[in-house]
Amino acid sequence: MEDLFRLTATAARLLISAGRLDPADLLEACLARIAAREPAVRAFAFVDPAQVRRATPRPGPLASFPLAGIPLGVKDVFDTADMPTEHGSPIWRGWRPKGDAAAVSLARAAGATVIGKTVTAEFAIRTPGPTAHPQTLQHTPGGSSSGSAAGVADGFFPLAYGTQAMGSLIKPAAYCGIVGYKPSFGAINRAGMKIVAETLDTVGVLARSVADCALFVGAVTGLDLGDPDTRPERAPRIGLCRSPAWSKALPETRTLLAKVEAALARAGAAVVERELPSAFDCFQEAFPRVLNREAAHGLRWELLHAPEQISPPLYDQLQAGLAVGAADYVAAAETLTELRRAFPLVMEDLDILVTPAATGEAPEGLASTGDSAFNSLWTALYVPCVSVPAGVGPTGLPLGIQIVARRGADRAALAWAQWVAAALEAGL
Amino acid sequence: MEDLFRLTATAARLLISAGRLDPADLLEACLARIAAREPAVRAFAFVDPAQVRRATPRPGPLASFPLAGIPLGVKDVFDTADMPTEHGSPIWRGWRPKGDAAAVSLARAAGATVIGKTVTAEFAIRTPGPTAHPQTLQHTPGGSSSGSAAGVADGFFPLAYGTQAMGSLIKPAAYCGIVGYKPSFGAINRAGMKIVAETLDTVGVLARSVADCALFVGAVTGLDLGDPDTRPERAPRIGLCRSPAWSKALPETRTLLAKVEAALARAGAAVVERELPSAFDCFQEAFPRVLNREAAHGLRWELLHAPEQISPPLYDQLQAGLAVGAADYVAAAETLTELRRAFPLVMEDLDILVTPAATGEAPEGLASTGDSAFNSLWTALYVPCVSVPAGVGPTGLPLGIQIVARRGADRAALAWAQWVAAALEAGL
Repeated sequence: MEDLFRLTATAARLLISAGRLDPADLLEACLARIAAREPAVRAFAFVDPAQVRRATPRPGPLASFPLAGIPLGVKDVFDTADMPTEHGSPIWRGWRPKGDAAAVSLARAAGATVIGKTVTAEFAIRTPGPTAHPQTLQHTPGGSSSGSAAGVADGFFPLAYGTQAMGSLIKPAAYCGIVGYKPSFGAINRAGMKIVAETLDTVGVLARSVADCALFVGAVTGLDLGDPDTRPERAPRIGLCRSPAWSKALPETRTLLAKVEAALARAGAAVVERELPSAFDCFQEAFPRVLNREAAHGLRWELLHAPEQISPPLYDQLQAGLAVGAADYVAAAETLTELRRAFPLVMEDLDILVTPAATGEAPEGLASTGDSAFNSLWTALYVPCVSVPAGVGPTGLPLGIQIVARRGADRAALAWAQWVAAALEAGL
Repeated sequence: MEDLFRLTATAARLLISAGRLDPADLLEACLARIAAREPAVRAFAFVDPAQVRRATPRPGPLASFPLAGIPLGVKDVFDTADMPTEHGSPIWRGWRPKGDAAAVSLARAAGATVIGKTVTAEFAIRTPGPTAHPQTLQHTPGGSSSGSAAGVADGFFPLAYGTQAMGSLIKPAAYCGIVGYKPSFGAINRAGMKIVAETLDTVGVLARSVADCALFVGAVTGLDLGDPDTRPERAPRIGLCRSPAWSKALPETRTLLAKVEAALARAGAAVVERELPSAFDCFQEAFPRVLNREAAHGLRWELLHAPEQISPPLYDQLQAGLAVGAADYVAAAETLTELRRAFPLVMEDLDILVTPAATGEAPEGLASTGDSAFNSLWTALYVPCVSVPAGVGPTGLPLGIQIVARRGADRAALAWAQWVAAALEAGL
């Protein structure tokens, strides 16, 4: 049991319920790992082992407390009553909210132990925090959910909350070689989370397996997400989608997609190429208008009262958002609504799309969290996205592949994501 | 100039820009009115005249500061950095947020002076606060935006923010004889507002004229809402909609609707009866599932940590919300989405619907803020709603009538609302 800190939540839960694992031992294993590795990885905006140890473990049956004893990292954009909430910004340094965000309370009500607050890029959209890639400290772990992804990958906690307005969950999951799951828009309540892009911000999770994602999100939403480890009776119909971002794919992603296509076909899937209709071309122009204007309004107080504490790139982005006219914003938002309506037709004969999760390996340097070119569209479409590990790139860093399904088809998205993950493990 | 405190924002703005009114005098007139009447009306959760006087008035041209010097009441569900934010709940008593909500910052950036925080029913959905109807203190002013409506009606401030998940803007506007405007869903940013029902909560305004609503919402959103006082070149095509709530209409509302129909026809409108298609029958079952479940998640922290400080009716409502299964919630939310898609057909040959704003006069007693039966549907449809004054009821209290337009047609909704208001003033 030396590698307790590497357990999936699903495995830990089984051991705990069988009386073979004391949640206190799991917590200590995670805290020991954190003590050893946090100085290098810097996944936490706040962690206080003494405080976490004092937190009363929730007793009771697994049916009522499906996350009993499971350590949880919480991205530092969610209010917490017992820990600071700083949104990755000096403006909010040391801020102590009154209550927990809904997502945090839902997890605590399900028995989870919040082990700390994880590093986020500035307001979850811009300048990175100090978190490093656990495998190669000179590389970014991705972001904006940087600490959540690095912490899950490096054994700090098996589960973590993140958020995504562009690629803040899926991209760091791919970079760190873990599983990221952005549910259909609205599945996890946003009350008490810092709203930046009101019609885009989506709460999601990072974990070590697809089954852990289903366990976690099922526990906090009540949705029946099934057991992704139960093998479906048939193989999926898959659309291989290079997506409009294909020109940004690095060589390792181009190679990966060809290998993925072959592996999925070998595993029995019906794989077809699927391009998006030309109606989707207008996305590139509409998306930044919606994102930037909403962010400029969502961060209006910061812009008014502490502009000098906003990073220059974000300041420029917010000014660009303020400059988007109301009519242009409304038209751009309506464009995104129309694409949401059009998307089911793209999926008509398919179970899922398989598409890159990121442009390639985690880039070197901590000045950027990487390119979200392969993520923003799916976020704006409100559809479930899952990133699963898919081998490694030229420098040995993890790659991920992204599974996309219809809005509301989260259970299917997770089931097929596990099918894809198994097919890639069997032979990429 | 003795009745400065009764000025509309539009009138005050013209006087200020012409150099004929000092904003400080307007503020003093409001504060004097508050000093005289607040002990009886109790519209404020927080007001500190000395603090408001210290607030620097924003200088500059009207184009940049369209609300320069205009006193504003802010419902106590919006975060304010310089005033407590209590959400109408003892759980949040004395709480001081770090920053302003987006809506508050947008108003302040436009030059408005926040004069105080106004009383809200508990979390904007349940147990009323102490606010009385300005005209008859034994009656409710309506709610949940109780203090905002009573304060606008009684001369405390010309403009106020409110919110609506059911009827929290339109109903108190009707009861208090003022204008209430719930914009299309999402028009005013919700960041920093207490989210209770995530897919329903809508920010809106209370004012003394339709033009004031256009001025205010135009200033904070940038939307071109036109000048409702400019008479349209033609008369509107109006659907008179008794709505599925008609059985709840009190005698004064039944009489009112007949008189309104006659007055609108006399003024030249083409008025037809318009019933909602039977597809809308499912609303009654779907709406409480969505509202209660979202509220139970949105208030999950309060439910977990301070259940004894939640009023018994709200506690029961939240428990009912927790008991709504995730699949039932998803299905109910999808029902509302379908109704939103179906509504444009209802409006195909019409400019607006005219429908009751409330069941009747403001009821006696402060234990309830009245029935929102005539409001929830339009809130859930995301369409713009305006309540304008429409004479008085049997005990001499104001009545209102509600104008409803297509989603996004806010400019038309306001223009026709003013047209209707003028027609009713000319001869109800």
